[in-house]
Amino acid sequence: MTVGVAIIGTGVMGAEHARLLDREVSAAQVRGVFDLDAERAAATVARVPSARAFDDPFELIADSAVDAVVVASADPTHERFVLAALAGRKPVLCEKPLAPDVAGCERIIAAELAVGRRLVSVGFMRRFDPGYLRLKQAVDAGGLGLPLMLHCTHRNQQAPAGLPSESLISGSAVHELDIARWLLGEELSRITVHRPRSSRASLPTEDPLFLVVESSSGVIIDIEVFVNSGYGYEVRCELVAERGTVSLDAPAPVVERRAGAVLRAVPADWRPRFAAAYRSELQNWVDSIEYGAPCDAATSWDGYAATVTAQAGILALRTGLAQPVSHLDRPELYPAPTGGARPAQSTAPG
Amino acid sequence: MTVGVAIIGTGVMGAEHARLLDREVSAAQVRGVFDLDAERAAATVARVPSARAFDDPFELIADSAVDAVVVASADPTHERFVLAALAGRKPVLCEKPLAPDVAGCERIIAAELAVGRRLVSVGFMRRFDPGYLRLKQAVDAGGLGLPLMLHCTHRNQQAPAGLPSESLISGSAVHELDIARWLLGEELSRITVHRPRSSRASLPTEDPLFLVVESSSGVIIDIEVFVNSGYGYEVRCELVAERGTVSLDAPAPVVERRAGAVLRAVPADWRPRFAAAYRSELQNWVDSIEYGAPCDAATSWDGYAATVTAQAGILALRTGLAQPVSHLDRPELYPAPTGGARPAQSTAPG
Amino acid sequence: MTVGVAIIGTGVMGAEHARLLDREVSAAQVRGVFDLDAERAAATVARVPSARAFDDPFELIADSAVDAVVVASADPTHERFVLAALAGRKPVLCEKPLAPDVAGCERIIAAELAVGRRLVSVGFMRRFDPGYLRLKQAVDAGGLGLPLMLHCTHRNQQAPAGLPSESLISGSAVHELDIARWLLGEELSRITVHRPRSSRASLPTEDPLFLVVESSSGVIIDIEVFVNSGYGYEVRCELVAERGTVSLDAPAPVVERRAGAVLRAVPADWRPRFAAAYRSELQNWVDSIEYGAPCDAATSWDGYAATVTAQAGILALRTGLAQPVSHLDRPELYPAPTGGARPAQSTAPG
Amino acid sequence: MTVGVAIIGTGVMGAEHARLLDREVSAAQVRGVFDLDAERAAATVARVPSARAFDDPFELIADSAVDAVVVASADPTHERFVLAALAGRKPVLCEKPLAPDVAGCERIIAAELAVGRRLVSVGFMRRFDPGYLRLKQAVDAGGLGLPLMLHCTHRNQQAPAGLPSESLISGSAVHELDIARWLLGEELSRITVHRPRSSRASLPTEDPLFLVVESSSGVIIDIEVFVNSGYGYEVRCELVAERGTVSLDAPAPVVERRAGAVLRAVPADWRPRFAAAYRSELQNWVDSIEYGAPCDAATSWDGYAATVTAQAGILALRTGLAQPVSHLDRPELYPAPTGGARPAQSTAPG
Repeated sequence: MTVGVAIIGTGVMGAEHARLLDREVSAAQVRGVFDLDAERAAATVARVPSARAFDDPFELIADSAVDAVVVASADPTHERFVLAALAGRKPVLCEKPLAPDVAGCERIIAAELAVGRRLVSVGFMRRFDPGYLRLKQAVDAGGLGLPLMLHCTHRNQQAPAGLPSESLISGSAVHELDIARWLLGEELSRITVHRPRSSRASLPTEDPLFLVVESSSGVIIDIEVFVNSGYGYEVRCELVAERGTVSLDAPAPVVERRAGAVLRAVPADWRPRFAAAYRSELQNWVDSIEYGAPCDAATSWDGYAATVTAQAGILALRTGLAQPVSHLDRPELYPAPTGGARPAQSTAPG
Repeated sequence: MTVGVAIIGTGVMGAEHARLLDREVSAAQVRGVFDLDAERAAATVARVPSARAFDDPFELIADSAVDAVVVASADPTHERFVLAALAGRKPVLCEKPLAPDVAGCERIIAAELAVGRRLVSVGFMRRFDPGYLRLKQAVDAGGLGLPLMLHCTHRNQQAPAGLPSESLISGSAVHELDIARWLLGEELSRITVHRPRSSRASLPTEDPLFLVVESSSGVIIDIEVFVNSGYGYEVRCELVAERGTVSLDAPAPVVERRAGAVLRAVPADWRPRFAAAYRSELQNWVDSIEYGAPCDAATSWDGYAATVTAQAGILALRTGLAQPVSHLDRPELYPAPTGGARPAQSTAPG
Repeated sequence: MTVGVAIIGTGVMGAEHARLLDREVSAAQVRGVFDLDAERAAATVARVPSARAFDDPFELIADSAVDAVVVASADPTHERFVLAALAGRKPVLCEKPLAPDVAGCERIIAAELAVGRRLVSVGFMRRFDPGYLRLKQAVDAGGLGLPLMLHCTHRNQQAPAGLPSESLISGSAVHELDIARWLLGEELSRITVHRPRSSRASLPTEDPLFLVVESSSGVIIDIEVFVNSGYGYEVRCELVAERGTVSLDAPAPVVERRAGAVLRAVPADWRPRFAAAYRSELQNWVDSIEYGAPCDAATSWDGYAATVTAQAGILALRTGLAQPVSHLDRPELYPAPTGGARPAQSTAPG
Repeated sequence: MTVGVAIIGTGVMGAEHARLLDREVSAAQVRGVFDLDAERAAATVARVPSARAFDDPFELIADSAVDAVVVASADPTHERFVLAALAGRKPVLCEKPLAPDVAGCERIIAAELAVGRRLVSVGFMRRFDPGYLRLKQAVDAGGLGLPLMLHCTHRNQQAPAGLPSESLISGSAVHELDIARWLLGEELSRITVHRPRSSRASLPTEDPLFLVVESSSGVIIDIEVFVNSGYGYEVRCELVAERGTVSLDAPAPVVERRAGAVLRAVPADWRPRFAAAYRSELQNWVDSIEYGAPCDAATSWDGYAATVTAQAGILALRTGLAQPVSHLDRPELYPAPTGGARPAQSTAPG
């Protein structure tokens, strides 16, 4: 009747997932939480009365009241918790990255293949954003013809001082890498990283970076990542196809007129921008567990592909050279990409 | 643990409320539905397994599994179902109008006063729309100074042939009448209805109409209602204050470029436009029942004020003369309006 | 080969007309200027070497080197200079108003009728604005069906303290009154003035005002005039027709992203907003003189109609009552309005 | 008193220049025109009475009534006409490219150096577009900090079948290459050309192309060129700097609402988009001749730099490798670039 959920890691995202599952998502109940910082875990329990705090995350994952697991702990710990959920045959929604290294992703895939059914979802929440969903519909409907280019912009207001330049790729652009695969319905094959002059506010971080990625069918994806843009959090995406383009619009609910300007406010971080997407992601995941509804979240394979591509990007950044993106063969457990970039009779121009 | 809900009326809105409560709202369960059309009730039950169909709406309302009631039946029936819920001391969320006539609203208020606590909410869902909420925040924050004018536009793509002209006021503009009271935090005092040339596609309905309404503090609210606009469903609202203005933006998630234009799609009806508001309204209502959280929905008093003003507007339409809007004194059970239009030291210009 | 122009009045607008005619308009030369303030006249002459300053405006108008006259002096003096130009059979472009009082306009019309051909143009420059021209094209093309409403907004950043409330009508809204006649191709028949609460920054000026005007065919025109809007100069106009609407867009050349906002700057006054319109108006006027091209500027009749309507508006403001707009019969010298609001077989909806 | 102009080449652009100089530009007169196609020349003369048609372009350039020359003939002929104007010591405004090959540009520079003063302007009209001018102001004002990236989009509705792929660089992207140098105030140093999948409507032309260009200070400029975009002509440009960004806005004068959309029309080609820029360019050029005003047009050096960079781009397209952009040393006759990309004390953050 109700999906009992464990939350591993109650930092910003884990605490928000707990809140959403408790108060905004149908058919879910948070049964337990774990955080290395016991006070942080207690703070979440105080707001979510159905939950209790566990000292041992593996005990929590194994608990009989727990039907499914959300992993929102530190990146390097994702793998072990996902593997524990797989061992317990429990659905697990893991914040990105699935694992920061390719080998970790491969071990998860191997474990899931051993189980023989898909239990792992990766929290690329943009796949649930109304704007990206419309982009996907527009591509898949075919009326625009084949996709040719994808222009992406990913800006944060401010990043922590001393952030490694590699994080712009593995932490930020990785969202665009996932979205590009999903929108285009195909794998990425090659990545180049251009280094514009860095903002003096960002140094020593090399920021912004400008990535040019090629998909297997030849679509060019360019991605600006600028984590110290100064003005706010903004994500843009324009898909250019044979007969037109579709772009995300900034979804500001109001327009203001004051002090010599007509303006729309930009949020300071990603949470207001993707609030609806986070809720929708969790509801979809719970529905897939409770009712067997199709789960639209990214799979282990998607998480693996994102990490593979991000790692190739980091190599491209370090070497200054274009790098191939090399994958395993996709196991049959994982669905073939759909829609997007493949020529088809029905979309041939007159 | 879970609020058991009855749905009275399973037409377009009732069926959608049932779906939302079943699948998108936390802590709610639909226990029973009633519709005069038994097939329509059965169709909803088929999609909502927790519910069963009742033959008698009053039996449903009284059922011990039912903690709260949604009234989404034909307008003239609202009163009797709301009164039944009040008789059972059960919270009730009634689609607008609370009642189509002033006397009906007054009887509901009398019954609620007799109960002695607020149990009735009216489904003016715009109060939960992110755009209107930002407008309200902007007004209440005071930085704009006092509100002076409110420009409103309310357009539907197409209305049923032969729709009575009065419906443009009581069925459509009534949303703006409620929002104006809520935004400005005060009552309306006077209403004039101008009759532009009618669209030939609308005749014999007089469409569009143009309302000019005055608030008790002197804010002028103008409202275009055009139910056969031809191009789609669109709601606009600009609040003009002493130091700037704030307007709803059309919340289109994407911008398209095709066929000689840069464009944003407009929906065909109100449901996509206010989808988030409907869900949020229901979640807020359920939370108020389950957790005693503040209920932000319109009260009986708000429903009464909307009907009083709409009726004055209909008289203004018929007579061609400005009409006063006359209210009872507001009983203490109902909260005084907040924010908005009242001068205060803190907002005095330098 | 070149049209020799006299400029009467070298204040802000007269000096700008002199500059435009000297440096931005083909086939024109400024031959002489007059201003009551001789220093101001000298300042213009210093920048326009082809011109010399005259002590007597009537001598200037009569000068044989002068082919045409621009009147940009104080409003109450317009009539005498226009009459002098008519007496000399010279084309004259008079800044609005043609005359501030109806009787003055009628005397000009009588004089022009006596001459027997149209020599007077009135500087309603918006008729040359690319945005308004597109609105006019859209209306006249007929694809939108008949016009039903016209929503107008006219905001200034700041007005002089103590500005008479009547000026909001005769000095500001008069632009909208002219544009409404021109767009709709018909006369105005009735005017109501609503008085919203005044901005405390405006007092004792009653500001904003809200006008509701009816055209002879029943189109409703609403006009917000707000001369102390605080944030900048902005003009908006939406024409609502049977099958769609067309609105002026704020023609900002760039969009900025900074400090938490995506914004477009609003100018502080009307000159940047209508810079292209002023140049185009003068070029069109010069071309009509030099090459006999059609003159698209407002006529004496248009100037008269604007003053008549503004005076009715002032009466409506003072009395609080709707006022009729009463005209003379239009003399045949003046063209019948074209396009716009008249039903025609070809625009009948299917 | 008036600048007598010769027009060499009366195709689309030459005829439009003739019209503008005759009817929209102050202080200019078209005295003669030449076109290989005598009928085409005659058609222009028929519309511009001050002009006569010449059989020999060199005779026209040398004619004593001709003070200045506009070259709008076929690209490969530009050099010879510019050199003839230089030989006659007459100012010449040459449509881009100055010459299609680097050697031709170098010969023009050598001839101009021999004359010892600047007489050659190149018709990169975007430098006169209000939007680009605002971008330049924003960069030069310094408040945004240093420029880091420049995102450019250049789309045409449709290109001639069989257009050489190289033309996307030398004919289209060359505008962005010039604008980038001008905006940033520095030279370009390196160019890469990515080849997205081509639109099937474009084949065998490789279209779109995606260029990544580096400036000497490290700004990254990316340029999408898509000459068969299908939907219209659109130019976009976003300058990303340390503290914000500035973008061109589509300067549509009106917004339409019809048939399920809110839309702004996109023109079919570049002429309406840059109409104001063309007029302003000619007026500025004429003023520089007539009054010695500063000429803001691109110089021979700019024309040379554009051709050098475009040729490097074509090599990059053919080889698939990044190519350096190698210049001569800039002769002192040509002004150093101004504004833009150079770090300065005053723009240092914090």
